[in-house]
Amino acid sequence: MLKEISEHRSIRKYTDKPIPKEVMDNVLNAAIRASNTGNMQVYSIIVTTYEKIKEELAPTHFNQPMVKNAPAILTFCADFNRFNKWCRQRVAEPGYDNFLSFLTGAIDAIIAAQNACIEAEHHGLGICYLGTAIYNADKIIDILNLPKGVVPITAVTMGYPAETPELTDRLPVEAVVHYEKYNDFTAEDIDEIYAEKENREDSKQFVKENDKETLAQVFTDVRYYKANNEHFSSVLLEVLKKQGFFE
Amino acid sequence: MLKEISEHRSIRKYTDKPIPKEVMDNVLNAAIRASNTGNMQVYSIIVTTYEKIKEELAPTHFNQPMVKNAPAILTFCADFNRFNKWCRQRVAEPGYDNFLSFLTGAIDAIIAAQNACIEAEHHGLGICYLGTAIYNADKIIDILNLPKGVVPITAVTMGYPAETPELTDRLPVEAVVHYEKYNDFTAEDIDEIYAEKENREDSKQFVKENDKETLAQVFTDVRYYKANNEHFSSVLLEVLKKQGFFE
Repeated sequence: MLKEISEHRSIRKYTDKPIPKEVMDNVLNAAIRASNTGNMQVYSIIVTTYEKIKEELAPTHFNQPMVKNAPAILTFCADFNRFNKWCRQRVAEPGYDNFLSFLTGAIDAIIAAQNACIEAEHHGLGICYLGTAIYNADKIIDILNLPKGVVPITAVTMGYPAETPELTDRLPVEAVVHYEKYNDFTAEDIDEIYAEKENREDSKQFVKENDKETLAQVFTDVRYYKANNEHFSSVLLEVLKKQGFFE
Repeated sequence: MLKEISEHRSIRKYTDKPIPKEVMDNVLNAAIRASNTGNMQVYSIIVTTYEKIKEELAPTHFNQPMVKNAPAILTFCADFNRFNKWCRQRVAEPGYDNFLSFLTGAIDAIIAAQNACIEAEHHGLGICYLGTAIYNADKIIDILNLPKGVVPITAVTMGYPAETPELTDRLPVEAVVHYEKYNDFTAEDIDEIYAEKENREDSKQFVKENDKETLAQVFTDVRYYKANNEHFSSVLLEVLKKQGFFE
């Protein structure tokens, strides 16, 4: 397996060493080589390195310390602004103010993001995805001046690693991969698939610390709970409307 | 730059050589190593190799010939079915029947897909993304027996290349990358950014063949036109409701 893939771990602590321009150029060019829809490249990348802007972004990522600590934050956005402008300048009427177009841009943005991450790791950099970009998309739009047609989909912190965490566990392949068609799970399958994860010492510790009965409850009651998911779903749908993807 | 990234081109013609099991296992394990949200792994991969199922899938991808021609089609799905089942078996009430959770699963699915593609190319395989998966998600759900909680996000054809197409063009980096904040485009910027693409011989040919005045019109009037985008947006939103992400 490509070592950039097999040895990937999220890096949340970085050294002070800045990212050399030629390395960042490689990372950005790798992003741009990515597969995308109809070669429209309906995404954009905002590279933030200024302390002041990183400080503004930090609360939108729930103040995870690596946001201020990392030399660079790359925000990957679905972007029809550029494409729509081009169309209008060329007597062509764009029809991309809809949900399908939003998801198309989001997919393009993520494929580009993963290319950037793998290329970064190829140069010895560490990265961490910030899933929080879609929680506070409204605030990120304000901070980064994203115009109509642009929605942040994910962000990535990037810098030289100041830690080497263990590889994180994964469910067995059979949990994720289905051959030919989807083979739905029996209760026994579920027990088997999650057994290793549930029996890990760190999982047990996690359950205890959170004063819960099961590991699943840590997810449903503490980390990713319904009221929060519903609140941020509403915010996100409002963002899509405001940015012109529900017209 | 990693050669798997710099030399990537979409491959639409494949030899008959099947993908050895150990190679496919590497590809699938690479997918599973990908970053994902909270290590919930809320995605799944359906690997289809049977002729009969590929034939059923072909029309959902608008009969692009590589769907039947490729030894394997990998369909990457947002998937909360497994996670929800686990929660319910562990006295935990899942709160993932909302739009934020859908997009979370979609992002996880795409990061995994791009890992799979890069690993496949590392083994000499060729790949092509099928953006059509989100157009006909309803039909793919029926064919692949996807239960509630599962939505196809993209599909990838995979096999040994029987062609070596030219690298496709890309907009200049300045079109896609913004430093610090978004720097919106002036009319002159747009002209400059699109000049090379518009002046390519293949672009001019494309405009002529489609009997259009500008390259942009080929996109807005022929390839990705408004009525079609709106139709498939409605279908896709219905799918999200049916699969339980708007409750």
